[in-house]
Amino acid sequence: MPRGPFLSLDGVDGTGKSTQCRWLAERLRAEGRAVTECADPGGTVVGDLLRDVLLHQRNALSLATEALLFMASRAQLTAEIIRPALDASQVVVADRYLLANVVYQGHAGGLDPRLLWEVGQLATGGLEPDLTLVLDVPLEVARARRRRPADRVESRDGEFHARVRAGFLAEARRRPDLVQVIDATGSAEDVRQLVWQRVSEFLDARGATP
Amino acid sequence: MPRGPFLSLDGVDGTGKSTQCRWLAERLRAEGRAVTECADPGGTVVGDLLRDVLLHQRNALSLATEALLFMASRAQLTAEIIRPALDASQVVVADRYLLANVVYQGHAGGLDPRLLWEVGQLATGGLEPDLTLVLDVPLEVARARRRRPADRVESRDGEFHARVRAGFLAEARRRPDLVQVIDATGSAEDVRQLVWQRVSEFLDARGATP
Repeated sequence: MPRGPFLSLDGVDGTGKSTQCRWLAERLRAEGRAVTECADPGGTVVGDLLRDVLLHQRNALSLATEALLFMASRAQLTAEIIRPALDASQVVVADRYLLANVVYQGHAGGLDPRLLWEVGQLATGGLEPDLTLVLDVPLEVARARRRRPADRVESRDGEFHARVRAGFLAEARRRPDLVQVIDATGSAEDVRQLVWQRVSEFLDARGATP
Repeated sequence: MPRGPFLSLDGVDGTGKSTQCRWLAERLRAEGRAVTECADPGGTVVGDLLRDVLLHQRNALSLATEALLFMASRAQLTAEIIRPALDASQVVVADRYLLANVVYQGHAGGLDPRLLWEVGQLATGGLEPDLTLVLDVPLEVARARRRRPADRVESRDGEFHARVRAGFLAEARRRPDLVQVIDATGSAEDVRQLVWQRVSEFLDARGATP
């Protein structure tokens, strides 16, 4: 049984990424595919415990500790949920994956992005998404779209967000075969169409039948 | 103010390592030195929370998750306790440090030791002990000395312990300037003397005055 395709959506907060993930999963199911959705941190008992630590100890955590807790949560999610789903030929749709750590704690936070990729090798056992779509919007658009109260990451300053956006774009330029940028300034429906176009092209090229 | 010396003791369980750490710290204090003792995982609020996850979720954790939780705990301990103590010219005596992860989850557990050293770079920010003493005893001696109920790591099989011991010895051969093996088969008093001989030689050579 061939391994299932592994897709992830990423980008700065406020791009509608989580909504698009849910929609993409539904769209794939409507085609008769088995789909597993996941979001980091969390999704496993261990991941939920670590998310609590990330939230409640936020002011105490060093940047390296924060990055390693995200990595530990990702390791567990990968071992418990993602690998078994892929091995069962399901499509996995991930709301963020390793790239987010490289960008948030690395490009934007100041840790070495190369070192974060290395740590990610341990966390994922070398697994990476076959296709990552980075939903990109100008920073003022992202800010206006964030309706819920700002969480830890979101309350950081505008300069930080600018570095996050630049980090995603730099990683997409570096690995254009795996990471593609989608302009997400249009309506949710416009973005859906762009996401689906890329995903369906990818699946057709891969020859994965439902 | 020069950075304080950073010492660690390590080795298989049952070598009397923790007792020797306490004794070494007392001995250094008796010389008029300011000493900070620490043990991983734990020692910080975050580390204690992670130790709970390591203990209570033991059957659920993937090996990579386990390694990353030890690393996260170490990152926090380093940022919160060890670096500030060294910056204040104190001696730090650590009951295990990064080497233990490399050996337990790497040499013995099956993860790539080189990759664990890389992850350790993120956790420690490149800090490593100036001198690590590995207390070494034959496996049957270590087993007889372990009086408390076997915990997760200790209940693993004898072959695992043999790989742990071999891992420590291999790392000591690889980095003889930083990692030295001490024969800990003698009495606690014998081992104390051997530990103190190495530590006092190191401190004299370093020129660190109390």
